[in-house]
Amino acid sequence: MQTTLLTIDDIKKIIQSVGLDRLMREMIDQLDHAFRQYDDSRMIVPTRDGFSYDDIYPGLLEWMPVMTRGENATIKIVGYHPCNPSTQQLPTIVSTVSVYDVANGHLIGLMDGVLLTALRTGAASALASRYLAKADSKRVGLIGAGAQAVTQLHGLAQVFDIERVQVYDIDPTVSATFADRVAFMDIPVEVIGQHHREQMVSEVDILCTATSAAVGSGAVFDAVETAPHLHINAVGSDFPGKIEVPLSLLERAFVSPDFPAQAAKEGECQQLPPDRMGPPLYDIIRNPSAYAEQRDNLTVFDSTGWAVEDAVASQLLLDYADELKLGQQITLESLAGDPQNPYNFLT
Amino acid sequence: MQTTLLTIDDIKKIIQSVGLDRLMREMIDQLDHAFRQYDDSRMIVPTRDGFSYDDIYPGLLEWMPVMTRGENATIKIVGYHPCNPSTQQLPTIVSTVSVYDVANGHLIGLMDGVLLTALRTGAASALASRYLAKADSKRVGLIGAGAQAVTQLHGLAQVFDIERVQVYDIDPTVSATFADRVAFMDIPVEVIGQHHREQMVSEVDILCTATSAAVGSGAVFDAVETAPHLHINAVGSDFPGKIEVPLSLLERAFVSPDFPAQAAKEGECQQLPPDRMGPPLYDIIRNPSAYAEQRDNLTVFDSTGWAVEDAVASQLLLDYADELKLGQQITLESLAGDPQNPYNFLT
Repeated sequence: MQTTLLTIDDIKKIIQSVGLDRLMREMIDQLDHAFRQYDDSRMIVPTRDGFSYDDIYPGLLEWMPVMTRGENATIKIVGYHPCNPSTQQLPTIVSTVSVYDVANGHLIGLMDGVLLTALRTGAASALASRYLAKADSKRVGLIGAGAQAVTQLHGLAQVFDIERVQVYDIDPTVSATFADRVAFMDIPVEVIGQHHREQMVSEVDILCTATSAAVGSGAVFDAVETAPHLHINAVGSDFPGKIEVPLSLLERAFVSPDFPAQAAKEGECQQLPPDRMGPPLYDIIRNPSAYAEQRDNLTVFDSTGWAVEDAVASQLLLDYADELKLGQQITLESLAGDPQNPYNFLT
Repeated sequence: MQTTLLTIDDIKKIIQSVGLDRLMREMIDQLDHAFRQYDDSRMIVPTRDGFSYDDIYPGLLEWMPVMTRGENATIKIVGYHPCNPSTQQLPTIVSTVSVYDVANGHLIGLMDGVLLTALRTGAASALASRYLAKADSKRVGLIGAGAQAVTQLHGLAQVFDIERVQVYDIDPTVSATFADRVAFMDIPVEVIGQHHREQMVSEVDILCTATSAAVGSGAVFDAVETAPHLHINAVGSDFPGKIEVPLSLLERAFVSPDFPAQAAKEGECQQLPPDRMGPPLYDIIRNPSAYAEQRDNLTVFDSTGWAVEDAVASQLLLDYADELKLGQQITLESLAGDPQNPYNFLT
C-alpha cells in the first residue's frame, strides 16, 4: 500500500495546469457543496487541540482532525508562529496535511498545508461573503496585510466585482508590499495609515481582519459607524483571548461561526453570550432564503478554521494530482508479508 | 527546509547495518535514559485522543503527541484495527510518526510507525522487567501471540537469559506460527492450549499479555496462584473498558503504569482506585533502590503506550538514518520566497 506525497512542487504544477483563479473558484464551490451536505453524524470534527508555548519563539502547534465515517480521516498539523516572517523568513502558518484510511489506519496522502491553509481560508471567507454580503459589494477593506490577506482578497475577487481594496497593517513595511503581491488580480490597492483605519472600516462593503494580534490586546480597530450592510470576515481569532472585532460591533451584528464549539472557545464568539451566537455558516448555506435579509445587515463570519475545510481542500488537490499524474508514491509503512510478524520484512 | 522520509526500506537498511538485537538493546537503553531524565515541565505529554468507530471495520485512529520544549514535537498517528490481519492481511497496528520543529512548525521527519511501535513496546516491557522482575527470570509466558508478542519476547531476550517461552492465543492458527516467527532468537517455544493457560500463568517468571481482547470481555486469563515474584507486562489495554489482568491479581500486585493519567483511563489501572496505582515506571527507574524489593513481589507494568517512547524511538531511527545517509529529503511545504505571499512560489 502506497502513500501519495504532494510537495509544493506538485501543487505548483497543479496550479500551472488548472489556473490559480480556477483553483480558487473550485475551492469555493467545493466548500459550498461540502457545507451544504455537512452531516455531523457522518463527519466527526473534534475541536482542535495542541501545544502552546513561548520557548524559542512564542507559538502554537495544533492538530486539527476530521473523520468522514467509513472513508477517511484528515489531520492537519498547523504551526502558528507570528515571529516566523521576521526571525526566520518563514510564513506565520507552517503546516502539513495527512489523510488516513479508516478501514485500516494506512496513510493515504501527505501534502503541504501552507498554501492549502491560505487557499481554504480565503475560499471560506469568499463563501461566507457570497451568502452574507451584498451581492454588489465593490469596496473591500483589509486589516492585516500578510499572507492570509492575499488569499482573502483572491477569494473575494472570484465572487465580487471589486473596484477598490484598502489595506492597513500595523507594520507599514508589510502593507507597502501588498499591492505588488496582489498585482495579478488587477484591483487598485490603497494603503491606509493608522489614522484612516476607522474611516476605511466605515466606508467598505466587506472587511477582512487577518492579523496576528496578541492575546489580550483587544480589537484591531475601533468601533465606528459602518455601512448598514457591512460584512466582516474575522479570520485571525484562533486562540482563547485573541480577538479582532470590537464587542460593541459584534453585539449589533448577525454573527455566524464556522464551527460553533471552536468559535466559542477561540473565535470572536468568545466575546458573546452563547445565545447571541448566530447559526453556523453551513446552516445558512443549507437554507439561504431564510437568511437572505441578513445581506442588508451588519454580519460577521467568525472564521476560526474548520477541519472540514482542510478535508475538502486536501481532497481537491489529491484528485487533481491523480488526474494529472502528479505526486510521488512511496511505501512508507511496514505492511507487507505476515501481519503477525513485525520482523517479516527483514527476511 | 527539507523533510526526511524514512520508509520501511530505510529502516530495513538501518537494521541490516546495526543488527536487530543491537537495535532492540539500544531502544531499551535509550528508553532507560529518557525515563530517568523525564521532566514533566520539559516534556509535555497530553493523553492520547482519537476517533473510535465501527463503520467498515471496528477500530480506532488515535493521535499521540509529545513535545520537548524548545526542541520538537513528535506525533504518532496510530490505527488499531483488530480485523486487519484476517480481513486485509495487514497488521492490527498501522502507524506513522512525524516530528515537528517547535521553533516554526516545520515537519522535520516522517517515518513508518508499524515496526517502531512494535520495537518500542517490546523495549518498554523489557525495561519494566529489568527493574521489576527477578534478575534470573528464565520462564516467560505470552498471552496473545500476534505481532506485539514477537517484540515482547525479543525485548525480554536482551535483558534475561530465557530458557523457555510458553505461548497461548485465542486463535490457535496464530500461536501455531509463533515458533517460526521467533526462531531467530533460539529460545524453545511451547504452544499452550486453553486448558493449560492458567497453569502457564502459575509457572512463569514473566508474563506478557498482548491481546486484542474486546471491550467489556474481561480478563484474558483466570486468577490463579502465581510465583510470588511474577512480573506481568500488560500491553493490550489501551481503551476504556478493555482489560487483560484479573482484578483480584491486580489488587495484590505492585502496579506501575507507564503514564498514570492514561493508564487510569485506558489501562489495567482503570480497574483500581487511584490510591492503589503505584508510581510510574520512570519514578522506579530514577530511584531503583527504593523499589528493589518489588522484584520479589507480584508486579504489573501497565503499558498503555507512552508518547515519550515514540519520541525516543523516532529519534533513534532518525539519528541512525543521518549517520548511515539513509532516507529521502523532500521539500514538502511552501516555505521559500516571501513569507507574506502564499503565491510567491508561482513566480
